[in-house]
Amino acid sequence: MPDERTTGREGVGAAVLAAGFGERLRECGRPKPLARVAGLTLLERTVRTLRAGGLEGEIVVVVGHRGEEVAGHCKARGLPVRVVENPDYPRGNGTSVLAAMRFLPERFVVAMVDHIHTPESVRRLLRCEGDFVAAVDTRPVYADPGEATRVRLEGGRVVEFGKNLPRYDGLDAGLFLCSRPALERLREASGGERLSWNDLKRAWLASGGEVVACDLAGAPWTDVDTPQDLRLSEEMVLGWAASGNDGPVSRHINRRISRRITRRLLDTPLSPDQVSLLSFALAALGAGLLAAGRLRLGGALVQLASIVDGCDGELARARLESSPRGAVFDATLDRWADALIISGLALGAGTRLAAAAGYPALAGALLVSYTRARWEAALGRMPSRFTGLGATRDVRLAVLALGGLLGAPGAALLATGALGNAEALRRLLALKRGRS
Amino acid sequence: MPDERTTGREGVGAAVLAAGFGERLRECGRPKPLARVAGLTLLERTVRTLRAGGLEGEIVVVVGHRGEEVAGHCKARGLPVRVVENPDYPRGNGTSVLAAMRFLPERFVVAMVDHIHTPESVRRLLRCEGDFVAAVDTRPVYADPGEATRVRLEGGRVVEFGKNLPRYDGLDAGLFLCSRPALERLREASGGERLSWNDLKRAWLASGGEVVACDLAGAPWTDVDTPQDLRLSEEMVLGWAASGNDGPVSRHINRRISRRITRRLLDTPLSPDQVSLLSFALAALGAGLLAAGRLRLGGALVQLASIVDGCDGELARARLESSPRGAVFDATLDRWADALIISGLALGAGTRLAAAAGYPALAGALLVSYTRARWEAALGRMPSRFTGLGATRDVRLAVLALGGLLGAPGAALLATGALGNAEALRRLLALKRGRS
Repeated sequence: MPDERTTGREGVGAAVLAAGFGERLRECGRPKPLARVAGLTLLERTVRTLRAGGLEGEIVVVVGHRGEEVAGHCKARGLPVRVVENPDYPRGNGTSVLAAMRFLPERFVVAMVDHIHTPESVRRLLRCEGDFVAAVDTRPVYADPGEATRVRLEGGRVVEFGKNLPRYDGLDAGLFLCSRPALERLREASGGERLSWNDLKRAWLASGGEVVACDLAGAPWTDVDTPQDLRLSEEMVLGWAASGNDGPVSRHINRRISRRITRRLLDTPLSPDQVSLLSFALAALGAGLLAAGRLRLGGALVQLASIVDGCDGELARARLESSPRGAVFDATLDRWADALIISGLALGAGTRLAAAAGYPALAGALLVSYTRARWEAALGRMPSRFTGLGATRDVRLAVLALGGLLGAPGAALLATGALGNAEALRRLLALKRGRS
Repeated sequence: MPDERTTGREGVGAAVLAAGFGERLRECGRPKPLARVAGLTLLERTVRTLRAGGLEGEIVVVVGHRGEEVAGHCKARGLPVRVVENPDYPRGNGTSVLAAMRFLPERFVVAMVDHIHTPESVRRLLRCEGDFVAAVDTRPVYADPGEATRVRLEGGRVVEFGKNLPRYDGLDAGLFLCSRPALERLREASGGERLSWNDLKRAWLASGGEVVACDLAGAPWTDVDTPQDLRLSEEMVLGWAASGNDGPVSRHINRRISRRITRRLLDTPLSPDQVSLLSFALAALGAGLLAAGRLRLGGALVQLASIVDGCDGELARARLESSPRGAVFDATLDRWADALIISGLALGAGTRLAAAAGYPALAGALLVSYTRARWEAALGRMPSRFTGLGATRDVRLAVLALGGLLGAPGAALLATGALGNAEALRRLLALKRGRS
């Protein structure tokens, strides 16, 4: 049999362990790797998370229990993976790691199909050095310390793994980075009746091997064993997807609603780009109503558009479909929507004040966005201190919406102009001082 | 005597040969390295060009004739260089290279203080591999084939250097990249009466060494020997500094005038940022006049502001002071000026059409700039095909200026809006198709 060993040049690979029985999810009717969380099966989610986290080498999915169904799913969804069957899976998931190893490059990640992580956690793991690195979490938020494997740490190293350790420093997060030549030595330990991945870890420690701890320190992750876990992990994914550089209106109002909308969109065929267009359409409709003098209804639609504007990013992050191109598309539509809303309010108000105040409002709104983009194109990330009240779209649209709803378009436009131009001026002065 | 040899890790260094007599510039009264071209002495220009081209290691300036004056200039201007005296300079500039060598890292550039290059040429040279790389020019534009050293090429290698080669393939551009250990071998050839750098090059070839040719192929460069050369090279520098991603109005009209203004600014203490502010002030004044209904005068000032807007970049490039920070500062002021001009024209025209048409005009103008910045922040350089008529500021300001001058503000605003929004829409559609 050809040995498909590859060199380190081919990047870090991954073994995804998807062979187990998944007893407690049996009532769902599908094999555990095919259980759905936030619009993706657990297996799709694991593969996309690894790729989004920067893993470039081959991904080997080890199947066992109901292996044909899982393999069929990989094929049907066109997942970029190699499926390897492990007939030994009833002996424990340690046998799955050994079965995957021959197809993997020098360094590879070991991931459990029933553990949900963020791409950022994968990225953090890939930055670690060592023959055996284990992601641990010293501040677990979602994972259950009663269920998970516990770890004891000493000087940045894991010195003990175990389900029932009475004293422990954190949880084993079920994500590892291993060196293949080092692990090959453990094949000898594989003769026993049962062979779990925990057995292999302990064999590694017993042989004098070091396990470097990569502390996720509160990053969102969890493992999924029961139908209740499925629901809780969906909450976790949506919560993570709804985070961002939000302004106060978004944080306290919009996100609560957009998250509920996003949850309903997850299993629809709607793409994030289509949701961006939907938000734009709502804003354009609102602008049209404002321009026609229907200030109250127009204002309400503007706020609705602002809420739906959160959904495209949430949907993309929850489905792990975020792309720079999608972000530029959304941002461009947002600027156009801003321009339409401000023009609509200025022209529909029917007062000389509003017709004039729309100009500084439009200039301020677009300049805030422009200065950030131009800064980041030339100078890299803009420091986080440049997020005053005038800096975020949620505040801007809330002010304009209130202008319509309360029948005070001139005041709303003046406030929008003042906030936006003040923030842009602050950035210009920072450039002048060169203290960027 | 301590040998200050350094490792390759310290980056590429440079020897700047500034020891010669400079006979034909004697009438200028100052040593040749201190002759001024486009606001900088030849020596400052050489040092800044090397740094702007990405050279990171030590720069050694070798002085001889009137060496104290040249050394004093380095100190007075705070040039980041080490000055080395070469008492042997009357024997030829080859002795200056040997004198510099002990202070240089493993790889170093040899530059003549009387040759003017662009940072881009330095960058190209630094990308070349080889123990001895010579910048040559197979399509010289400014340099005089009657004066310069000629080269014969074979298969990407220089096989002969000489002032009077009857058959030649290009000119020696006076810029080299050398490996110190390789050149050390030539010290033995240094016993003769005269020792020019050309002698050392020939000794290298005679010893079987290869000279890799780095073809500048028409890039702007020249050498300066006479007072007439000083004037011609200033033209060259200004012409190079005035190039950019110009629209048609800039190319055919604005640049001709801005270049003349810039020439007068070169020897003033005005900084590029101050010129950006001056252009902004002219635009703001023009906008104020437009808003007050003085459309003709306002329009004229807008076009003047557009012309002066070219000078900040020209001044920065000619003085080799360009910085990403300065570019963002200028761009931000430009967007604000655009907003003021459009608002002024819309509100000062006194017609309902103009008051409304200002909104799409302002949205289109800022969206064109925004889409480019946002694209480049996330996706890298925007393809050059996105430079339609609606894409550049020169066209936009010319249309608005004509709107004032010809008393047709509404039409000018509608045209500005149509051009800008059409270009922004084109970019949005390209994003949607994902064919970025």
